[in-house]
Amino acid sequence: MPNSPLTPQRTIDELKDLRALTGNADGAQRVCWTDSWAQARAWLKAKLAELPVEVVTDEAGNLWATLRGHTDQALLIGGHLDSVPNGGWLDGCLNTLAGLETLRRIAAEGTPPVTVRLVDWADEEGARFGRSLLGSSAVSGSLDPDEVRHLTDKDGISLPDALAQHGVILDQMKKAGRQLKNAAAYLELHIEQGPVLEGLKLPVGVVLGTFGVERHAIRFTGQSAHAGSTPMDQRRDALGAASKLHLEIRAIARRHGGVCTVGSVQTRPGIVTAVVGQCDMTLDQRHLDAGRLAQMLAEAKAAGERFAHEEKVTVEWRRLWNIHPIPFHPALIELADAAVREVCNASHRLPSGPLHDAAEVARAGVPTVMLFVQSLRGLSHAKEEDTLEEHIALSVRALDRLATKTMEWIAF
Amino acid sequence: MPNSPLTPQRTIDELKDLRALTGNADGAQRVCWTDSWAQARAWLKAKLAELPVEVVTDEAGNLWATLRGHTDQALLIGGHLDSVPNGGWLDGCLNTLAGLETLRRIAAEGTPPVTVRLVDWADEEGARFGRSLLGSSAVSGSLDPDEVRHLTDKDGISLPDALAQHGVILDQMKKAGRQLKNAAAYLELHIEQGPVLEGLKLPVGVVLGTFGVERHAIRFTGQSAHAGSTPMDQRRDALGAASKLHLEIRAIARRHGGVCTVGSVQTRPGIVTAVVGQCDMTLDQRHLDAGRLAQMLAEAKAAGERFAHEEKVTVEWRRLWNIHPIPFHPALIELADAAVREVCNASHRLPSGPLHDAAEVARAGVPTVMLFVQSLRGLSHAKEEDTLEEHIALSVRALDRLATKTMEWIAF
Repeated sequence: MPNSPLTPQRTIDELKDLRALTGNADGAQRVCWTDSWAQARAWLKAKLAELPVEVVTDEAGNLWATLRGHTDQALLIGGHLDSVPNGGWLDGCLNTLAGLETLRRIAAEGTPPVTVRLVDWADEEGARFGRSLLGSSAVSGSLDPDEVRHLTDKDGISLPDALAQHGVILDQMKKAGRQLKNAAAYLELHIEQGPVLEGLKLPVGVVLGTFGVERHAIRFTGQSAHAGSTPMDQRRDALGAASKLHLEIRAIARRHGGVCTVGSVQTRPGIVTAVVGQCDMTLDQRHLDAGRLAQMLAEAKAAGERFAHEEKVTVEWRRLWNIHPIPFHPALIELADAAVREVCNASHRLPSGPLHDAAEVARAGVPTVMLFVQSLRGLSHAKEEDTLEEHIALSVRALDRLATKTMEWIAF
Repeated sequence: MPNSPLTPQRTIDELKDLRALTGNADGAQRVCWTDSWAQARAWLKAKLAELPVEVVTDEAGNLWATLRGHTDQALLIGGHLDSVPNGGWLDGCLNTLAGLETLRRIAAEGTPPVTVRLVDWADEEGARFGRSLLGSSAVSGSLDPDEVRHLTDKDGISLPDALAQHGVILDQMKKAGRQLKNAAAYLELHIEQGPVLEGLKLPVGVVLGTFGVERHAIRFTGQSAHAGSTPMDQRRDALGAASKLHLEIRAIARRHGGVCTVGSVQTRPGIVTAVVGQCDMTLDQRHLDAGRLAQMLAEAKAAGERFAHEEKVTVEWRRLWNIHPIPFHPALIELADAAVREVCNASHRLPSGPLHDAAEVARAGVPTVMLFVQSLRGLSHAKEEDTLEEHIALSVRALDRLATKTMEWIAF
């Protein structure tokens, strides 16, 4: 890119500076609403002060840097500096710092055709109070203050008190929704946190949206019985139904192109000499298509009934949590795909398993898309989280290219 | 049986007397090497004192009542008064008291053709120190004192100290082996502790022997991964191998006519949002035929390897315990079958899942057989353990009839 000041190596250097400033031998330590997170924010503000942008912190604690363009219609680029405890060096801050580099490049070229805004979301991880996407859900309007008012951290400090220490008043947070007033598009780069791009040997991919999730607890109840004196045909083996259902939910996931996981099985009485009388299992089902997700759940429930009947046990379902799929914007997906191909020669479209701030912005009706950069070994939320530096550089270039295309799309 | 003094109702009455003497609202409380067990023993001795028998307690704490016959060749009839804590009113003491009633009947008819001995074994249950069949294994010779020397109860009292309080010196126990010197046959009646006879609507059955047991811990190790970001075809799901193996071991049991049980499954990390990285399961396999048992184990191991390969995980096996099958004596099985048919019109032959003192006697080379009387709902080792009184009466009659047939068999 002749004459472009975009310098992806600067992003890599800044990521390492931030790691040195706010990490330790156990990884990143930028849990939101702590001193080290505030330190990272101050570090970011010092960098923004070198650019011709207006910087404000909204009522939800999100930081906005605005580069005025020829119209008020705004391109948003987002990320989050906050991390989990002992986190990785990329999750969240890559997004913000790649956005910063893109903002620098655009600013260097003079007044852009549309307004460009970098947003650093507050408390994406929810690491301290267990509520993720806090800042972005305040902006999107999906936050219910009463649902989080009574949350406390492990030291017993309440969420409202911790927020207040950082100038955020819980009941004022949703006023931050006005930040979306002229939003015309939202872009976010993130590490994949999964193995797909590494498996395909591709540095960067385009995210189709975030999965809808159905999360359930399932209990099979049969009859505990002596392992020696109870013939096979007289057993009511609760684990039998659970084993069958586990294998079937994997088949359901493959049939529908989603993912289904049994993460926990608990057996009672759970001793070597007794048939299992009660078995608790968890089920997590995810799909990008709401109809398919509903179908996967219906098939799992039907299978559970069938296996309970076969094993002469009973089955109960309890929903733990669910969320609808959030598809990203078709036109922006096309632009992102083109940008990735221009920078990396090849692209790949994939859904996001984890939720991201981008999902909240999309829920609010802003055309949204994300880019994923390859994660090594799919690891994240751990100090082992890593991405090849050459891939980080490519992802910054792809985001920058996508920003240019999106500005044109907004202006047109 | 005209002119026979055999009175099965007396056995039922004595079972109830013993329950009143040594039980409470939670069930039987005759744990071996305790005061209440000693109380039960004293109660039994008082009853034996009314018969023309010699009573001795051997070096292992077993009580022997000997009715001299025309030859020293001896018919043994056994049981155990000791119970688990909160036990049932039949397990063990039915055997002893039915034997007592049979001994009374034989004694009433004068000097029998062969010597008849009632044995009340010490510590069949192993409820206090975790080592079952203690008294009978001392007699059979299979006891290794060094393996039990360091056992302690939940109050920290050592097994040798508890035994010494009841006059038993651990290192002298195996001298009790001489009690088998002239043993020609051993008979034992026991509640089934399983659902087979109840299912067949038969009061009494003949036991073919005690199952051999293979007991193993199996660990599958895959890779924990994010439930949202890891596609189905890139998972190394340790639970997948475990679910497949659980279903397969049930098929193996059915193919070979044994029983196989997975009683415990443990998943790690065991959370709803992660693919299972490590899965521990237990396997208990039982069969009356040593070759079939070995085949069942070999097939389970081969299946474990196959499923580990399919799921891209590793598998490790660790043997927890094993014992060979102990088949009972073919001629005595025939006699028992005839005796049951004479008393109950129909009989059924079945293996024993649980071990019994009879297995120790059989191991020592004494021709042995057992009778099972129906258990209601298969329950045992609980206060709900029960058997219809009419079935108890039939079982006492069947044991008595078998004793007569066995005396003739020994004398011939």
